[in-house]
Amino acid sequence: MKYLAILLFALASNTISSQNMKKQKPLIIEKQGAFSAGGTVIKSEGTYDALKPWNEQQGGQTRHGDHADVFYQIPEKHKQKSMIFLHGYGQSRRSWQTTADGREGFSDIFLRKGYSVYLVDQPGRGDAGQTIKSAQVDAIPYDQTWFTQFRIGLYPNFNEGVQFPKDEKSLNNFFRMMTPNTGNVDEETIVNSLSAVFDQSGEGILFTHSAGGVPGWKTAIKNTHVKAIVAIEPGGFTFPEGEVPKGNRAGKGVPMHGFMKLTKIPIVVYFGDYIPKEETNAASLNFWRNVLATAKQWAKVVNHYGGDVTIVHLPEIGIKGNTHFIMSDLNNQEIATILNTWLHQKGLDN
Amino acid sequence: MKYLAILLFALASNTISSQNMKKQKPLIIEKQGAFSAGGTVIKSEGTYDALKPWNEQQGGQTRHGDHADVFYQIPEKHKQKSMIFLHGYGQSRRSWQTTADGREGFSDIFLRKGYSVYLVDQPGRGDAGQTIKSAQVDAIPYDQTWFTQFRIGLYPNFNEGVQFPKDEKSLNNFFRMMTPNTGNVDEETIVNSLSAVFDQSGEGILFTHSAGGVPGWKTAIKNTHVKAIVAIEPGGFTFPEGEVPKGNRAGKGVPMHGFMKLTKIPIVVYFGDYIPKEETNAASLNFWRNVLATAKQWAKVVNHYGGDVTIVHLPEIGIKGNTHFIMSDLNNQEIATILNTWLHQKGLDN
Repeated sequence: MKYLAILLFALASNTISSQNMKKQKPLIIEKQGAFSAGGTVIKSEGTYDALKPWNEQQGGQTRHGDHADVFYQIPEKHKQKSMIFLHGYGQSRRSWQTTADGREGFSDIFLRKGYSVYLVDQPGRGDAGQTIKSAQVDAIPYDQTWFTQFRIGLYPNFNEGVQFPKDEKSLNNFFRMMTPNTGNVDEETIVNSLSAVFDQSGEGILFTHSAGGVPGWKTAIKNTHVKAIVAIEPGGFTFPEGEVPKGNRAGKGVPMHGFMKLTKIPIVVYFGDYIPKEETNAASLNFWRNVLATAKQWAKVVNHYGGDVTIVHLPEIGIKGNTHFIMSDLNNQEIATILNTWLHQKGLDN
Repeated sequence: MKYLAILLFALASNTISSQNMKKQKPLIIEKQGAFSAGGTVIKSEGTYDALKPWNEQQGGQTRHGDHADVFYQIPEKHKQKSMIFLHGYGQSRRSWQTTADGREGFSDIFLRKGYSVYLVDQPGRGDAGQTIKSAQVDAIPYDQTWFTQFRIGLYPNFNEGVQFPKDEKSLNNFFRMMTPNTGNVDEETIVNSLSAVFDQSGEGILFTHSAGGVPGWKTAIKNTHVKAIVAIEPGGFTFPEGEVPKGNRAGKGVPMHGFMKLTKIPIVVYFGDYIPKEETNAASLNFWRNVLATAKQWAKVVNHYGGDVTIVHLPEIGIKGNTHFIMSDLNNQEIATILNTWLHQKGLDN
């Protein structure tokens, strides 16, 4: 493939601090910081010589990798349960921190409501880039694939009425939120690191997006500090082994003993717009049609075993235009208000 | 090389929010968020078909890469000049956000003093992982090399009186702050993206660490929004072409016209402890001995042309035990106080 270098237009000249801010009360932060959670250590054979630290043949060294990287903020008067945010495929904590057009993301919105927030980069992603298995990072142009897969539209067309900003600056910013895997990291490693985040955060509400969905269910199975899950368009669902719907790639089997833990916590799952009722000629839309159908089957199974899963397909409650990034779409404040009602109903907002 | 997998001990069980916090006034944040700055776009030849977004042969797509990723916080009553923080080699913004033992890093310390802070992941690092040139990430065990190079000690020994926490949990956390390059990114790309950060932040004080040093000088040459530089053990120095000390790898030549811009702003450079006066048998110590000597030569040249460079070798003013990570060492509050005096003297704290 040959690439054409394209120069990027100058960014708008107004600076951040001079921008016309919608006046809100300031955030009152008691404590903030960053830490690593979980991970593994590997060691090379040989002997380390501190007098020649750059000797390439030198072994006897460790590498700490496969941890999660966490940025947290604890507001002055905080609720009992924290919120822990896990991004999806090709994304980092940026998914939750901000929006394509620079408004507040879900983590700031709920920080303002008094929740402590823990923003995770999973092992092999973003600031948690140090892994224990090597990888090749290929610089393949794929922006249009993601634009389409994320249901902003069928590129170059935006979906009609889409809750996504159409200006060039926002789209530029959105594409730059993608960040690659820096190592070969398996699902179990992600689950272990996320569970280690909950060991640090204490009891919390786990937010997952997209590919973060399945590690999210498995973290709730592993760690009792997960007291609720808010899943934004999760890519997969954990059924009891033997009860996975046949021929369904979005369904995964887990032992019944573990599955039952998902019936002990409230779970809400949100899906956006543009998911067709019937099979279409667009592969991305058929993909999400299958995922939504699986979500509904899964909710029935969890609830059959005594669980408390709510599937919210937003167009069905009159909210139109949402993409795969419901938490950062133009109407994310409205979505947060709806979610807030659910949190209150489930007694999660004390 | 063969690796032995080592299980990591369980992390301490006390959670973040229950930890005994030293009571400080809360941070009052008027606005915070994240954005991308700078970068390039490449495009593949061919035609994109939105109906088959995962067709591997499909071209006609763009890739946005080589930007910086920025997290910023603006306090309620903020000073005129912002602070922009650039990490060193193998590091991310974590270098400035926190310390190995979880205390406040420089960015929080100065945020409390009223500065707006902009924390940068440079192109190909951390959350700015999407680049336009592919790379292989090799999972090589190198912790002991860094421990030594960063003058914590000659591993496994800690330097006597070192201002670095010696407990296992802190060291574990410190090693996990390393994060690799995700692409082949050259210095010019880093400078361009950092300059684009200043276009967004407005006038500011640039903090650089280690390998961030040279891109820092070049950003100040490029962008007049850089009103001062605080360099923590910069790895290199830009001399006028033809005036680079001979046989000195830490000195780089730039055209005189550009160099002269460095004479127009106040600059302070800090070096820590354990830099020997004479050549030793430890390669890492000789490395820093050369860098410090170059720094002193460079300051003379800049000041000769009318500049305002101060080199602070901390042991010479009675401050002992600092590593290469002066901004996160155990005495980082003391260092910040010293720096604060300099900021005040130079009229940068209005």
